[in-house]
Amino acid sequence: MQPQHQSKTRLLDAALLVFRSRGYAGSTVEDVCAEADLTKGSFFHHFKTKEELAIAAAQHFSDRADALFTHAPYIDLPDPRDRLLAYVDFRIAILKGELRDYTCLLGTLVQETYQTHPAIRAACERHLTTHVDMLARDIAAAKARYAPDAAWTPESLGFHIQATIQGAFILAKAKNGAAVAVQCLAHLRRYLELLLVR
Amino acid sequence: MQPQHQSKTRLLDAALLVFRSRGYAGSTVEDVCAEADLTKGSFFHHFKTKEELAIAAAQHFSDRADALFTHAPYIDLPDPRDRLLAYVDFRIAILKGELRDYTCLLGTLVQETYQTHPAIRAACERHLTTHVDMLARDIAAAKARYAPDAAWTPESLGFHIQATIQGAFILAKAKNGAAVAVQCLAHLRRYLELLLVR
Repeated sequence: MQPQHQSKTRLLDAALLVFRSRGYAGSTVEDVCAEADLTKGSFFHHFKTKEELAIAAAQHFSDRADALFTHAPYIDLPDPRDRLLAYVDFRIAILKGELRDYTCLLGTLVQETYQTHPAIRAACERHLTTHVDMLARDIAAAKARYAPDAAWTPESLGFHIQATIQGAFILAKAKNGAAVAVQCLAHLRRYLELLLVR
Repeated sequence: MQPQHQSKTRLLDAALLVFRSRGYAGSTVEDVCAEADLTKGSFFHHFKTKEELAIAAAQHFSDRADALFTHAPYIDLPDPRDRLLAYVDFRIAILKGELRDYTCLLGTLVQETYQTHPAIRAACERHLTTHVDMLARDIAAAKARYAPDAAWTPESLGFHIQATIQGAFILAKAKNGAAVAVQCLAHLRRYLELLLVR
């Protein structure tokens, strides 16, 4: 069974790169097979359709992100405000390599499929919300300590952080480089510093 | 010549709706003709390819946005900080109707075509930057008055505003409604208030 499992992971890894390079509708099953160096027979052993692949790829992307952020270097910082600021610093630090390496599969997929592929939209919504829930736990702890009376909710700030990151990726694509995204995330960091006053 | 001109505008208006509904690769020339209620003959009289249409649609979208923001109700406010905050309020106020009515054509196009269609990417970059330049003029005036010694540049804050708006649209698509985008823009407004201290 090991080779089958490996071929599925190779197809999912390839899907992350291909969809992030060409979008969903602009990518074919053939593109993904070529990137994975596997046959269409292998593909259809694992996935019935490109849509099924996209939904599995969204889960795969989310699992990898969970692993990355759960084991990030800042995770043991005792102060939740420090953890939040270090999260933004970490997001800046990983803006490396090609655009297809650091942009978000979920934002890319949902941007174009929200109306035409409701199952892909729902998968992206679920995984984006899972990531925001993780952030919102640190935000709630930081708010309790540094801004207990503020009117905003931890969840809304989590989505704002996510929005800024997603939009920074779009600008990086438009400008064909990460420099503009770094500037946007520096503003996001400054906002968190101003909101959670030490 | 008037009917020809009208048919071109109808195709461009249709392209705004179709591309924002289905993305670039997911839309066909037939989809745009059906939305415009015009024939493919009419389409190919005006545009050689779908790519040429997308580039013209990006210009059309940008022209309409320029007209909207140049004549916005807040434009005569004397204080540049007030104009900036009112800009964000106006962006919140126009989050009405269907997703395809209020989301951004430029962000949608560049998200999926940045690598495969360099001419579309370049058009989106140009129009996004034009909008940021407009914002940056008010930001520079507000910074001179309220935060003259701050280390950030007006241009970087303009791109940050643009990023937040673009990301808010993505989350609205994921959640199938504008409520999350309203929350994100409320955080953006709070950031501007904290940054430009009256």
